[in-house]
Amino acid sequence: MLLSKLFLPVTKNLPSDAKIKSHQLMLRAGMIKQSSAGIYSWLPLGLKIMKKIEQIVREEQNEIGAQELLMPTVQSADIWKESGRYNDYGEEMLRIKDRQGREMLYGPTNEELITDIFRTSIKSYKSLPQMLYHIQWKFRDEIRPRFGVMRCREFFMKDAYSFDIDDESAKNSYNKMFFSYLKTFKRLGLEAIPMAADTGPIGGDLSHEFIILAETGESKIYTDKKIFEIKLKNYSLNDTSLEKMIKDFSSVYAVTDDKFKKDEFDQKVSKENQMVTKGIEVGHIFYFGDKYSKPLNCFVDSKGGKKTAVKMGSYGIGVSRLVGAIIEAKYNNEIMKWPRSVSPFDVVIIPSFSKNNKENLTKSMKIYEDLKKQNIDVLLDDVDESMSQKFKKHDLIGIPYQIIVGSKSTSDKFEFKEINSESSFIDLKEIKSKLIS
Amino acid sequence: MLLSKLFLPVTKNLPSDAKIKSHQLMLRAGMIKQSSAGIYSWLPLGLKIMKKIEQIVREEQNEIGAQELLMPTVQSADIWKESGRYNDYGEEMLRIKDRQGREMLYGPTNEELITDIFRTSIKSYKSLPQMLYHIQWKFRDEIRPRFGVMRCREFFMKDAYSFDIDDESAKNSYNKMFFSYLKTFKRLGLEAIPMAADTGPIGGDLSHEFIILAETGESKIYTDKKIFEIKLKNYSLNDTSLEKMIKDFSSVYAVTDDKFKKDEFDQKVSKENQMVTKGIEVGHIFYFGDKYSKPLNCFVDSKGGKKTAVKMGSYGIGVSRLVGAIIEAKYNNEIMKWPRSVSPFDVVIIPSFSKNNKENLTKSMKIYEDLKKQNIDVLLDDVDESMSQKFKKHDLIGIPYQIIVGSKSTSDKFEFKEINSESSFIDLKEIKSKLIS
Repeated sequence: MLLSKLFLPVTKNLPSDAKIKSHQLMLRAGMIKQSSAGIYSWLPLGLKIMKKIEQIVREEQNEIGAQELLMPTVQSADIWKESGRYNDYGEEMLRIKDRQGREMLYGPTNEELITDIFRTSIKSYKSLPQMLYHIQWKFRDEIRPRFGVMRCREFFMKDAYSFDIDDESAKNSYNKMFFSYLKTFKRLGLEAIPMAADTGPIGGDLSHEFIILAETGESKIYTDKKIFEIKLKNYSLNDTSLEKMIKDFSSVYAVTDDKFKKDEFDQKVSKENQMVTKGIEVGHIFYFGDKYSKPLNCFVDSKGGKKTAVKMGSYGIGVSRLVGAIIEAKYNNEIMKWPRSVSPFDVVIIPSFSKNNKENLTKSMKIYEDLKKQNIDVLLDDVDESMSQKFKKHDLIGIPYQIIVGSKSTSDKFEFKEINSESSFIDLKEIKSKLIS
Repeated sequence: MLLSKLFLPVTKNLPSDAKIKSHQLMLRAGMIKQSSAGIYSWLPLGLKIMKKIEQIVREEQNEIGAQELLMPTVQSADIWKESGRYNDYGEEMLRIKDRQGREMLYGPTNEELITDIFRTSIKSYKSLPQMLYHIQWKFRDEIRPRFGVMRCREFFMKDAYSFDIDDESAKNSYNKMFFSYLKTFKRLGLEAIPMAADTGPIGGDLSHEFIILAETGESKIYTDKKIFEIKLKNYSLNDTSLEKMIKDFSSVYAVTDDKFKKDEFDQKVSKENQMVTKGIEVGHIFYFGDKYSKPLNCFVDSKGGKKTAVKMGSYGIGVSRLVGAIIEAKYNNEIMKWPRSVSPFDVVIIPSFSKNNKENLTKSMKIYEDLKKQNIDVLLDDVDESMSQKFKKHDLIGIPYQIIVGSKSTSDKFEFKEINSESSFIDLKEIKSKLIS
């Protein structure tokens, strides 16, 4: 892609409510544009990143055998009345009346609707366990939407649901999701810490939050540094191994604000291992047994023939929120560096040229065509600006690799730079091998 | 994928309103489930097909240089008041009040919002032409939603918008989209006929509908058979060639009901070339100049420095509707055959086995693993049912190729069948080459 052709409308005058760095960066880099309070349009650069995140989330859900479906955004109120949540949910639920006067709503979550799909479809324990997920827009009518995509009203989320015949089997499904979440965040270049959590309005018996470290995070966290020694690669996708994984994580102290007790922290964690920092919640999983299946009559025949309420869990990852969260974690000293897995482009070529001397631009075009042939997704900055303006702009766009074509380039060596590292002069073959590796 | 694991809840008792064959098939094959009137959940089989269609639409939009962004589903009413359409739109617009009492709506289309994005971003003719599109859920509160996904309330649609400095340039953008649409439908296995159309509520000067032939279609069409002689491959993506393409299409008689005049038909089309049939609209494109840019103040500096209202067009393809439209076109004599490009799987293996003799199932598992290694997306029907039940089911699922492992299979030859053709006994190597070609 030529930068001059990319639809990249940057916001120069930041609104006063853009207080956190992800919100600022996303506006300044032309990733989003506010459409109304807490509602955003995703411009090409932002959308490309979000779609990469979405795809990684999808692949890791498929990997554990979860199946993708897609529920609508607008739901009937009837099913929420059946579960008893229609009145409980309060004003965060966007309530709608259609032209016939029927009560509808914009789904803030989907426990009711998935249970309805399940109860009409699955009748026997033989079809269990099942995991279903979808990735869909949701709406929560926040009274004060803020922090850009981090706390907005219309947001993009993956929510999954597990269905099992008993608690033991349900625990295995829960563990699989736990494992899948850690793998997902790792692929996104994030180190996520699982923390035992309150179940909140979803309800139930068991819950974990996944928190990534970020200085600007909203949650204060207290953890034993040992948690970073637990390596995902030591576990695999079978029930015994996953049980051990959960046990290993649970044995290390790691809590957020609300659960923190100083005495306990000092007693369980040695001084040198105590870590107090901030974090951002990027995922939340729940096991709630028959909380929804019972009122919604989601029963199956058990082995003995008895009707049994299906045991359910729900599992959420905020996909649009993750775009902001990654920025909070990776944007430091005014320089953004996207993890390779979600970077909008693999590499950017930055030539130094002027109206009167376009030699470096011509050279860059050749490199550009060459890299494209290797299926490398390359951006060429063909905009007529000074190099310092360009570098400043690319500090915001955050593509992790740069090829700088300036006076120091020779006929076969170019300045190749990984953001936040020293550059080196290497030939195109070597550049390609670095980009493909 | 093993069929026994696929979440495929078929509807056995069709609702009385499932009158057309796509609606019936989608329920019977477990592709969708109604959630409320005119609102559906897309189950794994249906979603997989829709996502393939979406991806083809996306690739062909990218191919002509349109850039993808994503506007939200919920919009502020303010911008619709600015354009003057808020009152005009009537009850089909789903109007919403948020908790602060602000007037919002679920977008039925996006001319206003895209114009708002554009006017704050682009200031000069130098940045034109531009084409932007998104693929997003939309809502039209139909008074009588019917025909399944063909006329539902919440639907998935690609809408694109072009921005040009003058009519001539705008015409070129229009022609590119025209070309892109024909290519898109061709890749979807459909023969679409472009027909001059009324502009309707979108307004404007120029408009074409794209209609595919289907006996059960809603529109009656009258055309000269010569239209099928115009071959897309004779045109390419440059202004002159595309102008010729439009001219060639426009010179052949092809109209829907509302524009049909018998005298004209008889006069312009020889008897043997007259074709009267039915069709389904799958795309609609509009050129409307400054109809929206003027009231919404979307001006750019022209070459001479004068402020000029941008010339716009809009271009829609109903992605969820296409799933139904393809079924209407390809489901005949109770047998569905998906075009390869959008088939839910590349091939299905159907073994004949029983509880007491699973030899063919074991054999099939080997073929299954082998094909998967070649990145062939294969479904194995491991459900314990009679072969006649299986064939009936696969007539609905519509995977175009079947490998039948029964008594006639030998150690290295299997019955390979393309739906609606004779089967033959060939070895696995030959099967693979047919599937990969």
